[in-house]
Amino acid sequence: MVVDVAQYRRIFYPETVAVIGASDNVMKFGGMLLRALLGFGCKARLYPVNPKAGTIMGLPAYASLDAVPGPVDFAVLTVPAEQVMDAVKACVKKGVKGAEILTAGFRESGPEGAALERELTRTARAGGLKLIGPNCFGVYTPEAGLTLMPGGEFSREPGPVGFISQSGGGTCDAAYMARGRGVHFSVAVSYGNGCDLAAAEMLSYFEADPKTKIVGAYLEGVDDGRDFFEALKSCAAKKPVIILKGGLSEQGYRGTLGHTGSMAGTRVAWEAAIRSAGAVAARDLKDLVELLMAFNCLEGFTGGGAGILAGGGLRTVDGLDAASAYGFPVPPLDDATAARIQALLPPAGGKGANPVDLANPVMSPTVVNPIMEMLAARDDVHFLVKYQMMFYLLNSVREVRKMTGNQEFKLEYHTALTNKAREIRERTGKPLIMVLLDIASDPEHWDMELGRWEARSHFTANGIPVFDNGLQAFSVLRRVADYYRRRR
Amino acid sequence: MVVDVAQYRRIFYPETVAVIGASDNVMKFGGMLLRALLGFGCKARLYPVNPKAGTIMGLPAYASLDAVPGPVDFAVLTVPAEQVMDAVKACVKKGVKGAEILTAGFRESGPEGAALERELTRTARAGGLKLIGPNCFGVYTPEAGLTLMPGGEFSREPGPVGFISQSGGGTCDAAYMARGRGVHFSVAVSYGNGCDLAAAEMLSYFEADPKTKIVGAYLEGVDDGRDFFEALKSCAAKKPVIILKGGLSEQGYRGTLGHTGSMAGTRVAWEAAIRSAGAVAARDLKDLVELLMAFNCLEGFTGGGAGILAGGGLRTVDGLDAASAYGFPVPPLDDATAARIQALLPPAGGKGANPVDLANPVMSPTVVNPIMEMLAARDDVHFLVKYQMMFYLLNSVREVRKMTGNQEFKLEYHTALTNKAREIRERTGKPLIMVLLDIASDPEHWDMELGRWEARSHFTANGIPVFDNGLQAFSVLRRVADYYRRRR
Repeated sequence: MVVDVAQYRRIFYPETVAVIGASDNVMKFGGMLLRALLGFGCKARLYPVNPKAGTIMGLPAYASLDAVPGPVDFAVLTVPAEQVMDAVKACVKKGVKGAEILTAGFRESGPEGAALERELTRTARAGGLKLIGPNCFGVYTPEAGLTLMPGGEFSREPGPVGFISQSGGGTCDAAYMARGRGVHFSVAVSYGNGCDLAAAEMLSYFEADPKTKIVGAYLEGVDDGRDFFEALKSCAAKKPVIILKGGLSEQGYRGTLGHTGSMAGTRVAWEAAIRSAGAVAARDLKDLVELLMAFNCLEGFTGGGAGILAGGGLRTVDGLDAASAYGFPVPPLDDATAARIQALLPPAGGKGANPVDLANPVMSPTVVNPIMEMLAARDDVHFLVKYQMMFYLLNSVREVRKMTGNQEFKLEYHTALTNKAREIRERTGKPLIMVLLDIASDPEHWDMELGRWEARSHFTANGIPVFDNGLQAFSVLRRVADYYRRRR
Repeated sequence: MVVDVAQYRRIFYPETVAVIGASDNVMKFGGMLLRALLGFGCKARLYPVNPKAGTIMGLPAYASLDAVPGPVDFAVLTVPAEQVMDAVKACVKKGVKGAEILTAGFRESGPEGAALERELTRTARAGGLKLIGPNCFGVYTPEAGLTLMPGGEFSREPGPVGFISQSGGGTCDAAYMARGRGVHFSVAVSYGNGCDLAAAEMLSYFEADPKTKIVGAYLEGVDDGRDFFEALKSCAAKKPVIILKGGLSEQGYRGTLGHTGSMAGTRVAWEAAIRSAGAVAARDLKDLVELLMAFNCLEGFTGGGAGILAGGGLRTVDGLDAASAYGFPVPPLDDATAARIQALLPPAGGKGANPVDLANPVMSPTVVNPIMEMLAARDDVHFLVKYQMMFYLLNSVREVRKMTGNQEFKLEYHTALTNKAREIRERTGKPLIMVLLDIASDPEHWDMELGRWEARSHFTANGIPVFDNGLQAFSVLRRVADYYRRRR
């Protein structure tokens, strides 16, 4: 299916939005969503619709959609299930382009709900209205200031990731997990039961959308497998598509029936199909978000040999084992390079080899940067992985700050590494990947973790992906490399 | 090997400790270690030894070990490699029971170092002196106030975990990772090259030590495989032993040669040997620490059917899939139980089934607790797993605090859950496991993560293990169940 992106403009980037069932009560969907839109700074003109009219959250409210002056691009339906059909008809009459139905109680609730849902879909399609949902959290388009149900404090920064999910909560979780990893969204759609707009169509939209470079999806099942896999194959041939499939086990299948009423299929069939379509499979939501982060930072990455830097024996060995577990060679160094690296390191514990053992976890960029240069200069090293224990670094930073009075020391550290990494990548095409180990665990040490998060934000904002541990880093790198190798 | 724990008393719980090579300079090992011991509140009498004598860190220093008045139980050697032999001889002469050699430059540095190391070992053994190291960080015994090199701010709380590691940095990392998970240590030994005291002997010690209930180990290799596996088998038959083996890949093997000069063996041989000895294999250091936490909370756990509670579709499906991936049945509910649970839940999104979909991620204990009761009442449910998104809970807690002015709301929440879990476990033997998902990622949301850590500390201190995601939770539970099933 080839879609015309312009036809979705007034749905995903609306200039006027009606909230049908708007309320001052933030415990109701209509109040929660309106508050989220206002808090988020929605750029569209907002029309609360409620039979009582009056004023809602400071905005003039309208007794019906009909009463709204001028055209309405997009509508949010939060009314009870039995009133949804009337609201859909009102949208058709008003010439609304798209409507998200937050209300539940349709296909997922049994045969009666399923019949009502089919009827909604027929009515909307006949009237040129695109439906999102029902039983969903809606659309999040940072560029348009459009956000989904509890998303008032989502990131306002637009980005290259298109996202779809059959779970509203999963969409929110993904948005929060993505934010600190430099991952921002073009359009994210929680489409719930997907009675009209669903996975296949959205994949085709993302394929055509110039703002979208990477696609993520949480799926429980698809209604038309052939359409879906064709759209997936076509999209994945142009842009990375990462899929988290819920209900892959026989037991999990039972779960998706209760949630969005989807046909889930079996694990083996799905995994084979995702792979054969050229897409990438994620294991859980964090894995999905970390794949998005990696694709965002490592466009075109095809793997090859790893140059690894770590401080201390366990982490050095971990780097070798983790790289090996995912099929990345860690080429031994020639004697000359080894000696030049060794000369920069403390004799006790330092090791000029690949992985480089930096002897301790707080080695400064004045030592690390030239070593990164030397590793990247080798033909058989195609990317660099640096283990960093922020915990000890921050402890030592604290000491240095005390001694020097220089409160900016940490930022210089990150900036120095980042600048060198950018320079190496521009010159050689070889990227840096950071493993910022999560060592702190006690509430007393929360500031160490905060420092790790600040570093992660800094690095990912500068195109350097950040992982919590080595196994996960190389697991993600393997899948990124396999994707781009396939496309070569 | 059967060991007499009493013979190690003056080594691991010394009453007098000499620091040979003590210094006021905290950039030197001798200064770093002395500061750590003082900061940690070492209960032993400390004797700094330095040719210049005088006063070091406020303590009277002695020009030689000979000059120290009275007996010395334990010595810390921080002098350069070429002075270590003389220090060992001095220890033998003084009748010291054990000495840790922090100094590097022995077996791991080449044939000359290896020869020197063999000579040290011969001298010490002939003189009744137990050596720890060289090339190590030393001994950590919270009960005795003994800590290892940079460990001045380690937990002072003694506990049931015996730990050994060929990596000093790994020992520190494990101690920090363990602390917020309610995992505390009897004795932890970073033994580096292990020229004398090494894995086999320590396993036998832990087997005999009444203070030690669980054993963790990071190993790069062992010198005498037969002794080691006999000790492992014997210890694992009585107490859970969790082993992280570094250098399992052919590439990783290369890494351990440079670090502690160990023979690493191959992945297949090691994994088979660990399993056949009845021990538990860990994938990386965090996995090892989470296994220690789980064994600490779940003594005797043999698995069976899971009763799962989650809020929202994705997490409910994730629970089913993750349990299935590790072979745990999630038994469907009888109609009566399903209806009774459904009656407690909001009709939109709530699902009286197993897993229970709590409809949203912030459902209060007044709803969750009776549902836990109903699940635990089933014969085919043997343990409970509760997914909790602290992120949303803390957001809602903030709202409730604002509205009610009750700043203690969160603590009541945790306490209510914990009390119910304890009551259920005492009555039925069925434990609760928490999955506190790590959703926050942006530095702006660090307080959500802090709340998650506070909850983790609270739950783990009350015997409830806490994981960051479902796959890891069920992966660890599988290994715990397999261990105790084997011992049944």
